[in-house]
Amino acid sequence: MKTSVVDYSGVRKIEFTPFDDLRGNLLKLYRREIFFDLMPNIEEIYLSQSKKSVVRGLHYQLGEKAQDKFVYCITGRMLDISVDLRPGKDFGKIHVEEMVGGNDCAIFIPGAFAHGVVILEDQTNFISISPQPYSPGDERGIRWDTLGIDFGISEPNITAKDLAWPSLMDILDQGG
Amino acid sequence: MKTSVVDYSGVRKIEFTPFDDLRGNLLKLYRREIFFDLMPNIEEIYLSQSKKSVVRGLHYQLGEKAQDKFVYCITGRMLDISVDLRPGKDFGKIHVEEMVGGNDCAIFIPGAFAHGVVILEDQTNFISISPQPYSPGDERGIRWDTLGIDFGISEPNITAKDLAWPSLMDILDQGG
Repeated sequence: MKTSVVDYSGVRKIEFTPFDDLRGNLLKLYRREIFFDLMPNIEEIYLSQSKKSVVRGLHYQLGEKAQDKFVYCITGRMLDISVDLRPGKDFGKIHVEEMVGGNDCAIFIPGAFAHGVVILEDQTNFISISPQPYSPGDERGIRWDTLGIDFGISEPNITAKDLAWPSLMDILDQGG
Repeated sequence: MKTSVVDYSGVRKIEFTPFDDLRGNLLKLYRREIFFDLMPNIEEIYLSQSKKSVVRGLHYQLGEKAQDKFVYCITGRMLDISVDLRPGKDFGKIHVEEMVGGNDCAIFIPGAFAHGVVILEDQTNFISISPQPYSPGDERGIRWDTLGIDFGISEPNITAKDLAWPSLMDILDQGG
């Protein structure tokens, strides 16, 4: 099975060739030998099921606690959103990727990026794999509706915690 | 989030307490600190989507190539089947677990067990995580319909390869 990785200024899109037959399909989502450079070990695997209009994030963890994420949409449809917070020319750059359940692509978001998802359909299941642990005390965020992008969600289903994060503009003003 | 592990003569049932809220739910399927004894590292993660009546397995890998499996049903419904091939009093013992999508249980099957699944609904998605790699040359199997159990599948969707495995009786006669 072929696996290719495309680099979008840090965010990687991983394209699989799944194995299809009359039974259905089999996707080798992670093999250590293939992903050794990106993710030589795994600390956490999360499965999330969300309703339409759910917004999760955007989140990042500070400094050495930064948490890389490898995201794949299993069923449903969602937008995967990342904001580059690395000092330099790409600081503040936004990457949005539409992900459809069972598609042949995953996204790898380095820990120095803020990350969130916007769910476009009910029964959207996605998996998130990380080589570093979640560290609640080091978690920070960016308010999702301050990116200057219309995600077409009029009534977001979002927590008070995620609504309380500062705007992208504030983050940019602070210089990260 | 609480995670408990129940041991059924080697096959472990892992019971989660997922985090539910108005957005949906979040399941911490794997955390290295929790599963350190069972699975301190991960070599492979497979995602499988199957139709109703699909049968996959039963498979095992020989000797040192034995491959533990950690299985969770994401959507749909299936039977998880394992046969103990460890020498001793439980040799040949069968464990069948019905798994429902989004349920709060996963199953850990040690590598010394043969393992297979029988899919009961269309659009059944399950994940299989292993701390050792797949090794095709070391793969062996047991024919699924020789276990003495009626799984209620009249027209199984199964590969010629899986139909060609020896019966459980043959395996037991050989002493494993």
